[in-house]
Amino acid sequence: MSAVVLSRDFDPALLQHHARELATAGRFLHGQGWVPATSGNFSARLSADYAAITASGRHKGRLTEQDIMVVDRAGRALDSARRPSAETLLHTTLYCRYPEVGAVLHTHSVNATLLSRRCGSELRLEGYELLKAFRGVETHDTCVIVPVFDNDQDIPRLAAQVEHYLDGHDEVPGYLIRGHGLYTWGRDVTEALRHLEAFEFLFQCELHQARG
Amino acid sequence: MSAVVLSRDFDPALLQHHARELATAGRFLHGQGWVPATSGNFSARLSADYAAITASGRHKGRLTEQDIMVVDRAGRALDSARRPSAETLLHTTLYCRYPEVGAVLHTHSVNATLLSRRCGSELRLEGYELLKAFRGVETHDTCVIVPVFDNDQDIPRLAAQVEHYLDGHDEVPGYLIRGHGLYTWGRDVTEALRHLEAFEFLFQCELHQARG
Amino acid sequence: MSAVVLSRDFDPALLQHHARELATAGRFLHGQGWVPATSGNFSARLSADYAAITASGRHKGRLTEQDIMVVDRAGRALDSARRPSAETLLHTTLYCRYPEVGAVLHTHSVNATLLSRRCGSELRLEGYELLKAFRGVETHDTCVIVPVFDNDQDIPRLAAQVEHYLDGHDEVPGYLIRGHGLYTWGRDVTEALRHLEAFEFLFQCELHQARG
Amino acid sequence: MSAVVLSRDFDPALLQHHARELATAGRFLHGQGWVPATSGNFSARLSADYAAITASGRHKGRLTEQDIMVVDRAGRALDSARRPSAETLLHTTLYCRYPEVGAVLHTHSVNATLLSRRCGSELRLEGYELLKAFRGVETHDTCVIVPVFDNDQDIPRLAAQVEHYLDGHDEVPGYLIRGHGLYTWGRDVTEALRHLEAFEFLFQCELHQARG
Repeated sequence: MSAVVLSRDFDPALLQHHARELATAGRFLHGQGWVPATSGNFSARLSADYAAITASGRHKGRLTEQDIMVVDRAGRALDSARRPSAETLLHTTLYCRYPEVGAVLHTHSVNATLLSRRCGSELRLEGYELLKAFRGVETHDTCVIVPVFDNDQDIPRLAAQVEHYLDGHDEVPGYLIRGHGLYTWGRDVTEALRHLEAFEFLFQCELHQARG
Repeated sequence: MSAVVLSRDFDPALLQHHARELATAGRFLHGQGWVPATSGNFSARLSADYAAITASGRHKGRLTEQDIMVVDRAGRALDSARRPSAETLLHTTLYCRYPEVGAVLHTHSVNATLLSRRCGSELRLEGYELLKAFRGVETHDTCVIVPVFDNDQDIPRLAAQVEHYLDGHDEVPGYLIRGHGLYTWGRDVTEALRHLEAFEFLFQCELHQARG
Repeated sequence: MSAVVLSRDFDPALLQHHARELATAGRFLHGQGWVPATSGNFSARLSADYAAITASGRHKGRLTEQDIMVVDRAGRALDSARRPSAETLLHTTLYCRYPEVGAVLHTHSVNATLLSRRCGSELRLEGYELLKAFRGVETHDTCVIVPVFDNDQDIPRLAAQVEHYLDGHDEVPGYLIRGHGLYTWGRDVTEALRHLEAFEFLFQCELHQARG
Repeated sequence: MSAVVLSRDFDPALLQHHARELATAGRFLHGQGWVPATSGNFSARLSADYAAITASGRHKGRLTEQDIMVVDRAGRALDSARRPSAETLLHTTLYCRYPEVGAVLHTHSVNATLLSRRCGSELRLEGYELLKAFRGVETHDTCVIVPVFDNDQDIPRLAAQVEHYLDGHDEVPGYLIRGHGLYTWGRDVTEALRHLEAFEFLFQCELHQARG
């Protein structure tokens, strides 16, 4: 089995583990209404070179191990039987940039959609105790900035925009795509989920406050 | 058994399969609050000539196989033991018009009700990534138009209005009846559910935006 | 066993049946958020003279058969081990008035509370397809009037106000108590639940519309 | 076994009982969205001197017995394997002050967060039937005052502020920390949960009313 591991550069047992974790996450996230229809996509790192990611067009509340596939750093599928999510490059870009990132979650909530449509190029989150749910934040008395990118069906172009922003700014726990959704990440699926729960809570607060 | 199939023009196993699919869909949809009380009705195509449809007055969150019955193209019941939904003709009209349609879902959400009461004869959905959940939509940079018909207890008259609209316009993924609810459809129950989840998401977005 | 039935005027098996029905209803209604904390109370008719009702102070999402007790037409408990709900008289008044009523549900939703605090002595529900969920309503093109009574801790006085209103008006499917909640009923628990789901849907619509 | 109980001043079986109660409460509260990410913390009294409390950073929807630890009156952990919640002192202060308090729940709902950010140093809850869910309240025709403290990462300082307020005022069923969340308590976990459900209901009402 180690031969297989070496040649493919990841442990097949880890793939199975992540597939189950992502399926469990999917049931929770669909139950929250954050991945309606077949929207959203989830991934988890397998090694320096590979990640497990949801195949295109699958319903995230009903994922099975067969819905999870392997892609390389450039987002290319290892097998041709299934097509990876169209936005795979947005995942692998994060794995290449941040060695400590172990999982990336992309969701489409109503609140993320509405908020991203009404704010400019950045969303500022300030004064909430729940900001402490983000890695490295130790007090509510701070400001977490979330960049907002215009939506684009040209994923390499969108990925380049994200890269350009991240090159020039302090680390962020996630970003929004306007009228589309949220990308967030963490050291593992559990941390990425914690960030996601925190974001959705804060988006709901911001949206209600904006309404007065 | 094939003799039965031929004479009735559909496979009884398909009826059972659809009955289970619609019952599962009903539990999900009632859990979402989209078919309150005994509202809504669901159907799935059995053949060129027949469809399975929910019987009148059943609670959609607690459907059993006994709550699903067979109707012909004109919406007439094959057996007289149960009464088909009063709006059966709105289902069969779609099966007659679109050979590729395999399932029709009619729901009554708060958001569909509110939105249909405040908008004119059409609802325009623009700029949302989730529009791509509709069959044939490949970009968020588009406009999906949803016709809104005034409510009418005269179902043949309402069906004729729908037909008239569909004759004169590009294909739509669904329509609203004012103060009443949504009709959407797909090649199968899974696709119709995907359209429904997308519609409900977009209705919620539109309603919140309208409120400012 | 028939001797017991005659002397107590109801079938003990019916009491057990209703206890289970009300417990099942309670889990659903608490899950909807309509009976928060230990609020709300539910009953079902056992005979001309007796009804089963939830004991005082029980959590409606966790009812067991031991939480259901028997009261007479005046709302007096048959046994002294448990105290019936403080509002028992509002239930038994309905059983005395309407021989066809088999179940009464009283709930405390946020929407019922908010709406009853902002409207006058009547709430008018018009033009909704879902009005047809109420017994006897055949078209959306109608107006269902829901009386709203001021809250009062003196239950006999409140019951008398309700009686006075019902004496002077057409039949209604339920009534609101201001800042408190809804009473609705039906021929059986299933019909009362259908009325309740319809009311909650309509309350949510009305509240959103009032907000503009 | 009694020797162990005496030396540690609490019954280990009670610790296990409370651990299970708090885990069950956590699943319910996370399902409601009131303890997003790893926010919130829960405790239950073990004796005059000790309390069981959630360890720091645990997800409240997935608590196991291993996530519950023992602290003394000053909030110090009995074992060094796990770190108690950073806010432990806010719990133990209540146990020291009120001998009849058996459980304390701290939650972070969107509504508590929003409401605490928009109100001054007190929130006034008036005229709701659900006020009767609070221990000692017998009528809707009253006013329950909820103090609102500014958030502070210095927990001893925040605890002193709370103590100072409680010294100078009538008993309250809970308090808010601005942009942070709610503390509520009761004789046991069941009563604390009843208070929590009532608070969340009332916060939602107040927030909607403030919006007009």
